[in-house]
Amino acid sequence: MAKTKALREEAKQAKRVAAAARAPADKAGKRAKATKQTKQTKAAEPASGAGAAVRYPLPDIATLPDDIRERILAAQEKAGFVPNVFLKLARRPAEFRAFFAYHDALMLKEGALTKAEREMIVVATSALNNCLYCVVAHGAILRIYQKDPLIADQLATNYRKAALPARQRAMLDFACKVAVSSATVDDEDHRLLQAHGFDAEDIWDIAAIAAFFALSNRLANFSGMMPNEAFYAMGRNPPAQAPRPAR
Amino acid sequence: MAKTKALREEAKQAKRVAAAARAPADKAGKRAKATKQTKQTKAAEPASGAGAAVRYPLPDIATLPDDIRERILAAQEKAGFVPNVFLKLARRPAEFRAFFAYHDALMLKEGALTKAEREMIVVATSALNNCLYCVVAHGAILRIYQKDPLIADQLATNYRKAALPARQRAMLDFACKVAVSSATVDDEDHRLLQAHGFDAEDIWDIAAIAAFFALSNRLANFSGMMPNEAFYAMGRNPPAQAPRPAR
Amino acid sequence: MAKTKALREEAKQAKRVAAAARAPADKAGKRAKATKQTKQTKAAEPASGAGAAVRYPLPDIATLPDDIRERILAAQEKAGFVPNVFLKLARRPAEFRAFFAYHDALMLKEGALTKAEREMIVVATSALNNCLYCVVAHGAILRIYQKDPLIADQLATNYRKAALPARQRAMLDFACKVAVSSATVDDEDHRLLQAHGFDAEDIWDIAAIAAFFALSNRLANFSGMMPNEAFYAMGRNPPAQAPRPAR
Amino acid sequence: MAKTKALREEAKQAKRVAAAARAPADKAGKRAKATKQTKQTKAAEPASGAGAAVRYPLPDIATLPDDIRERILAAQEKAGFVPNVFLKLARRPAEFRAFFAYHDALMLKEGALTKAEREMIVVATSALNNCLYCVVAHGAILRIYQKDPLIADQLATNYRKAALPARQRAMLDFACKVAVSSATVDDEDHRLLQAHGFDAEDIWDIAAIAAFFALSNRLANFSGMMPNEAFYAMGRNPPAQAPRPAR
Amino acid sequence: MAKTKALREEAKQAKRVAAAARAPADKAGKRAKATKQTKQTKAAEPASGAGAAVRYPLPDIATLPDDIRERILAAQEKAGFVPNVFLKLARRPAEFRAFFAYHDALMLKEGALTKAEREMIVVATSALNNCLYCVVAHGAILRIYQKDPLIADQLATNYRKAALPARQRAMLDFACKVAVSSATVDDEDHRLLQAHGFDAEDIWDIAAIAAFFALSNRLANFSGMMPNEAFYAMGRNPPAQAPRPAR
Amino acid sequence: MAKTKALREEAKQAKRVAAAARAPADKAGKRAKATKQTKQTKAAEPASGAGAAVRYPLPDIATLPDDIRERILAAQEKAGFVPNVFLKLARRPAEFRAFFAYHDALMLKEGALTKAEREMIVVATSALNNCLYCVVAHGAILRIYQKDPLIADQLATNYRKAALPARQRAMLDFACKVAVSSATVDDEDHRLLQAHGFDAEDIWDIAAIAAFFALSNRLANFSGMMPNEAFYAMGRNPPAQAPRPAR
Repeated sequence: MAKTKALREEAKQAKRVAAAARAPADKAGKRAKATKQTKQTKAAEPASGAGAAVRYPLPDIATLPDDIRERILAAQEKAGFVPNVFLKLARRPAEFRAFFAYHDALMLKEGALTKAEREMIVVATSALNNCLYCVVAHGAILRIYQKDPLIADQLATNYRKAALPARQRAMLDFACKVAVSSATVDDEDHRLLQAHGFDAEDIWDIAAIAAFFALSNRLANFSGMMPNEAFYAMGRNPPAQAPRPAR
Repeated sequence: MAKTKALREEAKQAKRVAAAARAPADKAGKRAKATKQTKQTKAAEPASGAGAAVRYPLPDIATLPDDIRERILAAQEKAGFVPNVFLKLARRPAEFRAFFAYHDALMLKEGALTKAEREMIVVATSALNNCLYCVVAHGAILRIYQKDPLIADQLATNYRKAALPARQRAMLDFACKVAVSSATVDDEDHRLLQAHGFDAEDIWDIAAIAAFFALSNRLANFSGMMPNEAFYAMGRNPPAQAPRPAR
Repeated sequence: MAKTKALREEAKQAKRVAAAARAPADKAGKRAKATKQTKQTKAAEPASGAGAAVRYPLPDIATLPDDIRERILAAQEKAGFVPNVFLKLARRPAEFRAFFAYHDALMLKEGALTKAEREMIVVATSALNNCLYCVVAHGAILRIYQKDPLIADQLATNYRKAALPARQRAMLDFACKVAVSSATVDDEDHRLLQAHGFDAEDIWDIAAIAAFFALSNRLANFSGMMPNEAFYAMGRNPPAQAPRPAR
Repeated sequence: MAKTKALREEAKQAKRVAAAARAPADKAGKRAKATKQTKQTKAAEPASGAGAAVRYPLPDIATLPDDIRERILAAQEKAGFVPNVFLKLARRPAEFRAFFAYHDALMLKEGALTKAEREMIVVATSALNNCLYCVVAHGAILRIYQKDPLIADQLATNYRKAALPARQRAMLDFACKVAVSSATVDDEDHRLLQAHGFDAEDIWDIAAIAAFFALSNRLANFSGMMPNEAFYAMGRNPPAQAPRPAR
Repeated sequence: MAKTKALREEAKQAKRVAAAARAPADKAGKRAKATKQTKQTKAAEPASGAGAAVRYPLPDIATLPDDIRERILAAQEKAGFVPNVFLKLARRPAEFRAFFAYHDALMLKEGALTKAEREMIVVATSALNNCLYCVVAHGAILRIYQKDPLIADQLATNYRKAALPARQRAMLDFACKVAVSSATVDDEDHRLLQAHGFDAEDIWDIAAIAAFFALSNRLANFSGMMPNEAFYAMGRNPPAQAPRPAR
Repeated sequence: MAKTKALREEAKQAKRVAAAARAPADKAGKRAKATKQTKQTKAAEPASGAGAAVRYPLPDIATLPDDIRERILAAQEKAGFVPNVFLKLARRPAEFRAFFAYHDALMLKEGALTKAEREMIVVATSALNNCLYCVVAHGAILRIYQKDPLIADQLATNYRKAALPARQRAMLDFACKVAVSSATVDDEDHRLLQAHGFDAEDIWDIAAIAAFFALSNRLANFSGMMPNEAFYAMGRNPPAQAPRPAR
């Protein structure tokens, strides 16, 4: 009985989460509408880029399989909101589970790469694929991990301009090569990375993260996945009492 | 006791499988060596492209976690040999599990796309990424599913030259756009596909397969994953008593 | 006499401004140094991307020609700091004067394009040229003019994903074509813009802004011009008591 | 009289050859039609890529000039069928003669390059031009000359992955540069090849073969030249009692 | 009174100049019309590329602000005709003034680069942007400064083929990198130039000229700016009694 | 006897021709040397781009096979000098014969395309391949055939800017597509050309010329073939008492 009630509570919370997650899109809609109407703009003109969001609407969390709802609620607990990637992919439970299992295997594992370095790879390669979701969401996470409010915008625009140690520069050069022309990766690339102290397992980590986000970027791009508003400002103020990111 | 013996048997078989799986590489080495030595070629000259294979050697199956070994033995049972993707990824069990869970969620699910059509997407997009493993291995599977010994080479070289129905042509146009410039996918692309009878779920399938193999191609390319010799010839003879493909 | 004193005061202020303007770079240096040192990173490793900043050091404002110092002080008055573009270009007074005369002629003029729309063109085209300075500095200005904390990151990553009216989307499509392949601009492009209400003068404005920032982006990229830290966060909080931008 | 009869015989044979040569296209048509009709495919939907074949139909051999018919019959004698390139180009006798004279001058001449190496260049560069005819037809010839059933698919997908001696890798690097960006060929390229034992005449051979197939690939691509079915499987079985290739 | 008369005279001359400047376009129109009409060409078919010229017609010089008219008359005095860039940009006086101030600051200044070398940069980079106006007009100026009737066509087609000293080759390599991918300019580029004797100010000159013509090329391309006929032949005859170029 | 003497005369003339043909290169060398030596240029610095000319020196005409020498003398008779393509290719007699047979089959044949139109295709596509020899030599021929001193520079820089009838614009659009991405040519391209009055044979002509110069451009680029000085100025003066071009 207590359990039934708890579940009912959870379902209600899930509905609120879903509503909150959808809110940014609504607000964006309103903001677009509120944009100063110049004389040439017809009022009824549809906003571009809106199709995909309508096509794959975010589901009601209460209707999702238990394990997926729980994962989403945990993410919400941690971040203070539900990152849209959870809601967008939830309509395909088997793909959701595989996606996050892969994500966690690469991003949460132990290894020589710091968590901030993993996020650097995500931001730099996602920018090459022009993926708004990953650049904004992982840019936020990178700012927090690296305790640097500038690094994400630098990597997203031109990682060569960031004041990085040569080792991290070599890491990003390689990750970007895997992202853009993996067929030309050769032994010389491996030697260069080894000269910076990366061993074969570290190189696998770098390449696999770039490869996984090649998948993630394409999913976000075709499906109209939009970053939650909260990500844009997160981690920009060094004292940063900001909520910690889920994923 | 019986169980212990069975496990011992299985472990022995696994060693034989691993040896067999490594064999093609050895043979390739010998073949390269046997290539007519022209007068300019110094005998000791190292073959190019060999580094990656050495760097990430294929593991001994007997040493793998049970679930992974079982999956590999099942694949061997079905195909008559162990496709190298299983062995190459097995060194990273968590990534292995996520990879094949994702693969199966996209390639084995029910839906409007036939299995042959899914493999068409794999071959056409993997060719754009110059991925030898995926073009050769999935080319073999496509020949078998489609019962057409020519289709894979056509899609791998120029899918526009294959005599495909307009619906499949539109499917490949879209998959290739997701593979190469997903950031420019827009509502017009969706409308075009809908005009050929694809609904939103079918479009997700096409895009997600192209996205998943964007990951897979990069993994194969950087890690030196080489297709098993058996794949090259498979399905080229229409009567095709060839073994059915695992993956 | 009073004038002499006033000039002395101004010169002192100018020194403070110059010191303040250089500060971000210093801090960036410290931050980079403070980055969690992973075990592979040698302490003495030089940071990449630092060369250009050293090569063309920012001048002491007190040594600049009067008209240039005054323009810089006016900019500081307005923005609360001296945007680095003023200091970087000041070493070439004739080029400085021509650059800002051109900038003002395009960005401050009356016309059908709003100031926010002009900045949209700057951000979207500068992102195509991977220009860190212009993306960050003009992104800040755009957020303030548009009263939208999200728009700049959207345009910088993929302008097609922003929820823009079709008119602004057409404006950016054209600006990006001018930025990337101006030789293929043809009558059809003009017709498309006219269908959205732009006349020949508006089209000139769009193209000329894209062309001017083709210049600006290349200057910033080769000379190591880095955006002031203040730009990164500016305009991200809607109430925005932020200082108004000088350029 | 005997001669008249012999000529009549030859003309009859020529008709049979032409019919046989056209057969693959017909079969391809049937195969396309036989493809599992998924529910969305309308029956009357025209196959894509069929236009060019219809536009430049293969001629009746009996109607061709004597020297061209004889060359075609000789090719048929050698290969067991008439490669479609002979029939497609035969409609332009002067171009036919020049094309094959050029081909023979480059591919049949004596020199340091083996015949297999010449075919390697053809396959690798034709793949860069996405030329289905040349990749499939010359891939077959390469397999036979090299006595290697795998080499053609490797070079067609990513020649960097083939286990080639460094000398052949350098040869293909150069050939691909000539194919893709000949304007940037410089002395350094020549020095690299000389370091692998190629002299100026060998370098001419490599470059000229890449240049000739730049022509051939474009002819095949625009004219709808399709490889004969026989080429796809040829040389894939090492014992290879396969017919020897003409051209 | 005398002054009034002088002004009237000047205005008349200005009208003649404007008429003369428009003449080439008229003649080009006639020439296009006179082109051998092949049987397929419908008489009424509009010539392509004519739209932009019509859209931004060249102004009547007499109506321009005094300083602009004077600059134009000075240019005419020097060159014997009014280069179209003056007339095309004159419709925007503020932009005209900034453009030519910038041009003069870069092209007429003292420095280690000769005037011919500056024009080399213009021709080589404008060719990369396919800018007809700048290639033809600055090609003429380059021929005259360099006293070489061949150099401009060589740089416009492939600067690597011109017989240049290594120092000038390095200068053009860098200028072209700034023109095409300025975001990848790094310290190594600067070192290379320094090895050829260029100091930091020379490097700024090279880069700034490439950057300024990135602007100029885009203006010319979108606005339909066509080179005056006189430029095409200028400087092609070594004795060269040709008029000196105004810009 | 008279014949012997005639042959001796011919051989002497041939030597003079060869010397004359080599002259431009010599002069170019001197001109490069004479270039204003700026202070940074070391005197002994080798000119770039000179290697290929040295590597494949032009042969002594007297030593060539009779048919090739005769073809060269005929070309000289017609043009007043020997175009370098004849001398560069003469070192490979079989390739020489095939090359010019192919050239003549495409460029001298009867058909709907005028000779000027054929040369337009050569100039526009050779510019895309940055082929100095073909752009300059065929640019000269085009100026003469078209009786237009401007057309060649326009097509070489940006064919979209030339005032061409729509039919010729469509012809060049197609030729450039064949040159750059022949694998994407499809039925729609053919329909477009047919709408401008081109039939299937005309389309073959356009495509085959673009394809043949894909070969020719690559030969010229790798072999260091330089245009004779005479070509640069030829046909630039409308009255044009210029010698008619050979090839």
